[in-house]
Amino acid sequence: MKVLITGGAGFLGQRLARDLLARGALRKTVGNGGAPEPITELVLLDTTPAQAPDDARVRVETGDVADRALLERLIDTDTAVVFHLAAILSAEAEAEFDLGLHINLDGTRALLEVCRARGHCPRLVFTSSVAVYGGDLPEEVQDDTALDPQSSYGVQKAMAELLIGDYSRRGFVDGRVLRLPTVAVRPGRPSGAASSFASGIVREALNGETAVCPVSGATAIWLLSPRKAVQCLVTASEIEGEALGTRRIVNLPGVSTTVDEMIEELSKFGGAKAVARVDWAPDEVIERIVSSWPARWNDARAKKLGFTGDASFHAIVKVYVEDELPWAEKKRA
Amino acid sequence: MKVLITGGAGFLGQRLARDLLARGALRKTVGNGGAPEPITELVLLDTTPAQAPDDARVRVETGDVADRALLERLIDTDTAVVFHLAAILSAEAEAEFDLGLHINLDGTRALLEVCRARGHCPRLVFTSSVAVYGGDLPEEVQDDTALDPQSSYGVQKAMAELLIGDYSRRGFVDGRVLRLPTVAVRPGRPSGAASSFASGIVREALNGETAVCPVSGATAIWLLSPRKAVQCLVTASEIEGEALGTRRIVNLPGVSTTVDEMIEELSKFGGAKAVARVDWAPDEVIERIVSSWPARWNDARAKKLGFTGDASFHAIVKVYVEDELPWAEKKRA
Repeated sequence: MKVLITGGAGFLGQRLARDLLARGALRKTVGNGGAPEPITELVLLDTTPAQAPDDARVRVETGDVADRALLERLIDTDTAVVFHLAAILSAEAEAEFDLGLHINLDGTRALLEVCRARGHCPRLVFTSSVAVYGGDLPEEVQDDTALDPQSSYGVQKAMAELLIGDYSRRGFVDGRVLRLPTVAVRPGRPSGAASSFASGIVREALNGETAVCPVSGATAIWLLSPRKAVQCLVTASEIEGEALGTRRIVNLPGVSTTVDEMIEELSKFGGAKAVARVDWAPDEVIERIVSSWPARWNDARAKKLGFTGDASFHAIVKVYVEDELPWAEKKRA
Repeated sequence: MKVLITGGAGFLGQRLARDLLARGALRKTVGNGGAPEPITELVLLDTTPAQAPDDARVRVETGDVADRALLERLIDTDTAVVFHLAAILSAEAEAEFDLGLHINLDGTRALLEVCRARGHCPRLVFTSSVAVYGGDLPEEVQDDTALDPQSSYGVQKAMAELLIGDYSRRGFVDGRVLRLPTVAVRPGRPSGAASSFASGIVREALNGETAVCPVSGATAIWLLSPRKAVQCLVTASEIEGEALGTRRIVNLPGVSTTVDEMIEELSKFGGAKAVARVDWAPDEVIERIVSSWPARWNDARAKKLGFTGDASFHAIVKVYVEDELPWAEKKRA
């Protein structure tokens, strides 16, 4: 089978690509009794060339995800799974309204249209977000809590969810929408997400750099580690469509924490020295967007479907320190 | 002020135009202390030429609501209110997927973009629908019940709602989204709505014609009379933006009834002869769409904002008989 990852140069796209190449196959029950089917081609599409290992299965493509002609070259009836991760993130979509609509809405629509035209109903795994929620929220968001997004990013993701739901209902694609908590702690550099600080206050502070925190310590966030996020993407691609039924959206597992609690964990791993590197610099726009997101949601359905999250924020930082810090230190050396 | 009605040749557009011309002015509190401002131009846009009285204020335009160049000719900074009624209705949008997306989504987006480009934040009144709801619904839908539309029409309306909400939040337009119950009893001919029968079983049966009913007698529906629907459109255009706050969506008042109860009312007005004209011809697609809609929702917020509905289905039929039947009979004569 062929697999396409849009946003293939992005953080999650890169992680997912590595994971898929390592596992070499995906389960696709329909037709062959559940045995994993080898991945013969992995296309990484992004606006900049994705980094890729020297592997004959990998094909790196650059371009605009809203460009149908390009997508038509990349998707054929052997394309069994599309991971649609390409997005303009929350802070950037708020600042660049037209760009956000173009990538987050038109890009999704172009992808859906090309899949539809192929006629083979491929699996489409889409990453949605906490940002689709907002307004008056219950303490714990439920599967049937109404969406009331307070950012352009959240609106665009909610629209894309609806469109994927309809294309799935009509049998044009086999859509699976994952609502991701904030994915942290990420290695690398700050991103265009309003929640970028959630990685930064741990990553930069442990890395000997100043870590800017634009929100107050009381701010609650709902988190998932990068490792678990990738695992959930793979699970979403392998799950049976019947298990989802008509509801193609899954609110992924997360852990609820506050910025103060995150700082407490930071002190455990990096001491007072690390904590002192956090520069509290309130940013009204970021604060408004992030505080409109739910602090937790009910993830019972996700867990029942086989998606797993992290044990605690402590566990998330521990994995980050184990997996990423040696690498970061090596890079600095 | 100038006023634009998209879908100006449609049933509601025609009624609204007549009402606006008769009242001659609309309140637009900002800037002149609440006094009604005269309507100097009323543009009726539709794909076919709208019927219009011989009135110097009326301008009839034909074209595609998704055509930006056309909209740029019709909207300027004097356009104080846009009533966006143009739509491909539920049954038609289910049958003609691309056309539905084009008019219901691209049309709304084009309109929003042209309003945004003008920079004067006009009031935009948009008609949404019961069809945005679906799936597992509580007996009475609440303002915070999640949308789970089960038709392409419902999906497209829900997407348009989200987009209007974001354009309003960003100050590009001053949007007011009215979720309409099924509007019945309408005079005239059957429409492209899945709920077209709700008018037909009264209208055709009282008119001496066969009335096809594609759903079962137990089917529950949520109704608003044409007269009240037009009144709600006007109210929506005059209401202060502050009264709505960040929530630009209003679930309009309605009356909940069943098809059996409607038939009972039909017998009161037309006797057994009228009831005998109802031809029960189940249609699976129509039944699936209509039964996915809510049978009632909580309309307390709408009423608090000054929107009013009908007293009962009996009252709705009474108004239809008084207003429409003499006209229909005259036409037949």
